[in-house]
Formats: sequence, C-alpha cells, structure tokens
Amino acid sequence: MALIVAKFGGTSVASPERIQMVAKRLISIKQQGNDVVAVVSAMGKTTDELVGLAAALSKNPPAREMDRLLSTGEQVSMTLLAMAIEARGYRAMSFTGRQAGIKTSTEHKKAKIQLVHADRIQTAIEEGYIPVVAGFQGIDEKGDITTLGRGGSDTTAVAVAYGIGADVCEIYSDVDGVYSADPRLVPRARKLDVISYDDMLELSSAGAGVLQARAVELARKYNVVIHSRSAFSDAPGTLIKEDDPSMEKAVISGIAHDTSEVKITIRDAPDESGIASKIFSALAGNKVNLDMIIQNVSEEGSTDMTFTCPESDLDKAREVVENVIPVIRARDYVVDENIAKVSLVGTGMKSSPGVAARAFTALAEADVNIILISTSPIRLSMVVAADQVEVAVRALHTAFGLDSDSVFEETMLSAEELEAKKKKGR
Amino acid sequence: MALIVAKFGGTSVASPERIQMVAKRLISIKQQGNDVVAVVSAMGKTTDELVGLAAALSKNPPAREMDRLLSTGEQVSMTLLAMAIEARGYRAMSFTGRQAGIKTSTEHKKAKIQLVHADRIQTAIEEGYIPVVAGFQGIDEKGDITTLGRGGSDTTAVAVAYGIGADVCEIYSDVDGVYSADPRLVPRARKLDVISYDDMLELSSAGAGVLQARAVELARKYNVVIHSRSAFSDAPGTLIKEDDPSMEKAVISGIAHDTSEVKITIRDAPDESGIASKIFSALAGNKVNLDMIIQNVSEEGSTDMTFTCPESDLDKAREVVENVIPVIRARDYVVDENIAKVSLVGTGMKSSPGVAARAFTALAEADVNIILISTSPIRLSMVVAADQVEVAVRALHTAFGLDSDSVFEETMLSAEELEAKKKKGR
Repeated sequence: MALIVAKFGGTSVASPERIQMVAKRLISIKQQGNDVVAVVSAMGKTTDELVGLAAALSKNPPAREMDRLLSTGEQVSMTLLAMAIEARGYRAMSFTGRQAGIKTSTEHKKAKIQLVHADRIQTAIEEGYIPVVAGFQGIDEKGDITTLGRGGSDTTAVAVAYGIGADVCEIYSDVDGVYSADPRLVPRARKLDVISYDDMLELSSAGAGVLQARAVELARKYNVVIHSRSAFSDAPGTLIKEDDPSMEKAVISGIAHDTSEVKITIRDAPDESGIASKIFSALAGNKVNLDMIIQNVSEEGSTDMTFTCPESDLDKAREVVENVIPVIRARDYVVDENIAKVSLVGTGMKSSPGVAARAFTALAEADVNIILISTSPIRLSMVVAADQVEVAVRALHTAFGLDSDSVFEETMLSAEELEAKKKKGR
Repeated sequence: MALIVAKFGGTSVASPERIQMVAKRLISIKQQGNDVVAVVSAMGKTTDELVGLAAALSKNPPAREMDRLLSTGEQVSMTLLAMAIEARGYRAMSFTGRQAGIKTSTEHKKAKIQLVHADRIQTAIEEGYIPVVAGFQGIDEKGDITTLGRGGSDTTAVAVAYGIGADVCEIYSDVDGVYSADPRLVPRARKLDVISYDDMLELSSAGAGVLQARAVELARKYNVVIHSRSAFSDAPGTLIKEDDPSMEKAVISGIAHDTSEVKITIRDAPDESGIASKIFSALAGNKVNLDMIIQNVSEEGSTDMTFTCPESDLDKAREVVENVIPVIRARDYVVDENIAKVSLVGTGMKSSPGVAARAFTALAEADVNIILISTSPIRLSMVVAADQVEVAVRALHTAFGLDSDSVFEETMLSAEELEAKKKKGR
C-alpha cells in the first residue's frame, strides 16, 4: 500500500505498443494495492520534430509560441495513455500542466516549478482514477503555458510526488538504474542499489544521463525518494535518497563522462583586476552556460583564461569573446571542440585524501593527458582529449575498485547507438 | 479598411512552405490597411493520424480524452503560423479555443458553439497583432476542451467573425469558390459570384464539400458574410450572404451530389401504426444520422420502409435494424451501398413550377434510373446508382441551362484524386 508517482520517458511511450506496456505496468502497480499517478514525456522524437517545424518557419520563434507548440507533445501522449488504461477496464484521467496545478516562473522554454496545487490530482486518486500528468509543462502567473526545458518531465514527476506526498517517485527509462560508470563504455560497470542525492547530483551534472540534475536537486530539497528503474523489466533499480549511515561508503560512487562540451581559451590578456569580471559578465549576459573556468598567469604579466561550455552555446560564446577581446586587449582565442570531461564523484571523497593523486596516476599509466582539472568537495573532473575518454573512464573505474565481477551485457544498446557514441568520442 | 476573419484549412497549412504562404497572405491583407484574424485547422492529415493512434489503443476512447488529443492538432498549426508571421516582422499571437473565448456545449467530439467572448482577440487586434485562432475547439462550462466535429474550423471562423463584428469571413481552401456543380464531374460548371445562405445550406447539406453546412447555418443566423475563395490565387471567389433582390435569380443555383450514403430497406413490415416510430426511434437512439426516409405501402397490407444514412453509420444502423425486425415482424432488410444522391438546389425553385418534371425528363433521356426522390421547397434530391452519378449531374446541369461557355480547367485535381473519385462513383 503505497502512493507512487511513475514517470515514463519518450522512449517508453514512443508507439501504441509501448503505451500499452506502460498501461499494463500502471495497472499492475494498482493491482498490488497501491495508488499511482503517471507522468509522461512526449512520444519518441515528437519534441524534436516540433522544434524542426518551428525552425523551418522562424530563426528565432517567439518563446510564448514555442512553449505552446512543444506542450502539445505531452498532451498527445497523456491522452493516449489514459485511453489505453481505460480500454483495459481501469479509470484514468489526463491532466495538462495547467490542470495538474503546476505553477512555474515565466521564463519560457526553461521555466522553474514554483508550486504544485495537486488538489485535482488528489481528488482523482481518491475517486479511483489513475491520473496521467503531462510532464515538461506548467503555467506561469499570466496563465501562459511554459515548458521546463529538456528533461523537464523528471522534474514534473518529482514535483508531483512532493505535491501529493508520494512514497516514491519511480522514474522509468531504458536503463535499469544508476551505474558506477556508463556501461556502454565500461563493460564491468556495476549497478548501484542506492546513491545519495549529493552524489547523484554530481554524477548528473557531470554528464550521467540517467536522471536530470535539476530533478535530483528538487528531490533533495523536498526529500523525495527517487527510484530509477527499467521500463522493460521488473528488477529493482537504484534508489536516490538522503545520505544515511547504512549506505555503503565507497570513496567513489561513480564515474561520469561528458563529451558535449567545448573549451575556449582567451590568450594573452593583461593580468589586471576586472578582466575576468568583464569576460564572464558578458558571457552571462548572453546566456552562455559555463562549466569549468581556469586561469593561468604567465610570467610576463599576461594571462590565459580558459572555460568550457556546452557545444550548443558555442556560437553565443564566440560572439561574446570576439566582442570582448578588443575591450580587454587580449591577443586572440582558440576553441577546442574535441574534448571530454571525466568526473569522479563520491561523498566519501571528502574523508579520503589522495583521491586526486590516485586518479592522476591511473591516467598517467594509461597514457591519458589531462588538459584541465576542476574539483568540488565530492567531485574531481578532468578534461581529456575526446578520443581518450573510453580509456580514461576504464582506467579510473579499475583504479578505484569499481569493477564488477560480471561483465555488463549490453542488452540496451543498439549497434547504431554504439557507433554514434564512438563517433562523438573521437 | 475592413475587419477580416481569414480561415485556412488543413491543406493550406500542411507544410512549413504552405504556412509561409498563409503568413504572406495575412500580411498582405494587413498591408492593404485591414485588420485580420486568422483561424486555422490542423496541418494536413494530423487529425486523421491522431484518430489512428487513439484507435490503436482503444476501441471506444473516452470522449474527454479524445477531444484533448484532437485539439493538439490546431495548437501546433496556430503556433507555427504565428511564428511564421513574426519571422516576417509582423506581430502575431496564437489563441486556443479557450483563450479565444469559444464556449461550447458539453457534447464531446461534436460540441456546439454557444458563445464567443472575443475580448482577448479584440485587444490583440487593437494592439496591432494578427491573432491566430485554433479552429475546431472550445471549452465547455466545466472548463474541459471540446471539439466541434469535422469541419468545425469553418464554424469557428464564422463564430469569431460574429464575435468581433468582422466585415467578412473569408474561408480559404483549395477550390476557388462555389460552383454550379462539382467541376471535377462537370467540366462546364460555372463559378457563382454570389449565393444566398439558403441555397448554400442546401448545397452543403446535399454534399457540396466546399463549406460545412453548420458554418453556413451559423452565418445565416448571425448574418455573417462568407467569402469562399482560393488559398492559391487572388481571384475573388463566391460570396455567401442574405438573399437580396439584386441577386441573379436562376431557378437552380447549383447541383450537388453525394456518394457517401447507403440505402437500407426493411421489407414487408405489417402496415400498422407505430411501425415507423419504432424503427426511427431505435435508429435515433443509436445516433444514426438519417437523410431520406421513404415508405411504400404494398397492396397486401405490408409496407417497405427505406432510408438512407452515411456509410459511416452503416454498422450502427444494421445493429438497430436486426434488433427491430423481429419486434415489428418485418420479413428482412437489404442494404445498397452503391448509390449516389443528386440534388438540384435553388431558392428560385419555389416560384418555378415544373422543375421536378424537367429533372425527371432529363434523367430519363440520359437513361438514368431514379431510385428514390425527396424534396424540400428549394431542393429536389434523387438517388441514382453510384455509377450513373456523373451522367446524371451533367444531364441536369445542361437541362437547367447552367453550362458555362468555357470548359473548366482542372488545375486543382490530381490524377490520383480523379481516380479515387471515379472508383468511389462506381
């Protein structure tokens, strides 16, 4: 007897057949005596297709229109899922973000959830319905539709779980939990039974794709237990919850990698105060999402300023940098797109000195050159050449004793995906 | 300087390229000093695709969910059109049925417009926007999304035109107006410059596809002038408006035909009172849309009851008839799917005796056998064999002096459509 929120991503509702599977799953949760609320993403590639249509019509579509366009994707999947449940003799009712009472900030395309008025969902549960909620969307104070940005459906699920006081927020996807490293890169990666919010947050931020960092952040804030599990099996996945003493205390929980960033270096800027401020204020003003920032001061009183940002922000970043270089009297700038970031994450790191040394040694022995380093109390990130990411992750995984005895069977990875992954890594 | 509502159907917004054309058209209306409100249908076959998805998941999808599903189609086209207009430097704002203030009855999938609160549209016009309104949808008193049924976008356009006091409701489609007969059947069909609501209503009801009968009915009720014209040319089309003395008074305005009906005859029912009531109450109870009803009493005190209904209602009709036959002690029933209805329409008919006689003579001379006849004060409908529909329409067109001097050029009909039309006629 539990109250469960079950979120299904785009892959899980990509076709009528898949939607039937989701309906079955929800009914089986209900049959076990639980109450359940479903949260769904848009079917398969719907969102991308809508973005493509908009791009064909406008270089810079008005944000309000864009949000209303994108929000239709979840409205289709939610109604179809409700129909599939009803066709199996159970009662279901779909809810748009508006109807689910999801109030957000007014920043179109990346609105933040501010409040969940879950009364209507609550009433529907009490009346025996399986509520089906559109992920990724809400309304702002003006009543306009907003969307939460990519991966926003995870965030919706966590918010709804909090709003109705659910026991757990189950997030179903095509992977069966959180791994000590990407199993596609590291065949000996281990599935974790449990991981703390902090570690999961660092892993997500560092590129582990299984959960959206902002959803984990929201879960941590409101203490919502997340269960990351497979839509295609009944096996338990990974619980993400408050750090507690019973949790296994490995030094490193997992290793994440991210090949979606680029590195920009502004060379030979005068080493004066205010330079960094000018550069990074300009970047922030143009909404470039910065990740790592490193400054080297040379002996001649000039400085090199390096930062990384998502590849998708590269054009915006170039624009800013080209404008700022004459202002700060720097020499020039260089862009490196062939980088990968590898991150060790673990709350246990705080109490274990020598993690960095062990990591650098492991990479040196594997002949991997480290380009940039950045750290947090529970994370150590190193930027390496993109074509060395696989070697680097494997070496670290072994060096920190994470290798499992059994080799991961790649049931979930198609040949095309593997190829795409490899290409990206190069 | 006029206030214009411009409605574009699914074909006109079927692709980004077509949407660009619509945007250009709207801007050109605006540039001529007018104010304009757009009403759009869903892109191309979107609605059919959504219906197909629902059918894959449920034999009998809940009406509330179905309406929310279908309403997404227009939400996509309206936002895309608004983006296309904005990209050309004009201001546009999209409106769902809810936001456009279109209040309907609660009958899902065939809701009726009850009220238009056009304040938000009006304000947008005053602020210089081109409002883009989703056709086909509204909300009921409970706040649930409703849809107006097939062709509902025409009705939305007329309702919005009335709500904002527009000078004209332009309905753009792939045909350039109302013809004296379907130009695909009758190469000498003439485009009408103007036609009365009454005649248009009869033509639409009798199968002329260019405008939805209910939209014409609403226009007549609220005296909204409709201009039916081509989305692909600037040539004026046909005005549909109040009958006025200046209108050309042809006896017959046009000839419509309809191959989408079937004929069912219940044979040898006892000729007693209450039989017709039993049959047609049962049909109404099962929501079969009846068109013609004809009763023949035979000499032996038994009666044949014949009616026509849309082919799409045939299964429901069969069910009713099979149940009712034992109750009324009729012998059996026969279904004829290969029929076509040909209708002469004209307000002038009222004051011109001999129309029926002239029609029957024309068909007899063309060797067309008349199966059923039904009349209204301004319409004469005859059911003939489906494979004789073309001959029948042409013979009548000539007999009533409707032939134009020039032969219609079939610019708008593809070979496939012609073939499909012919097949259906067989």
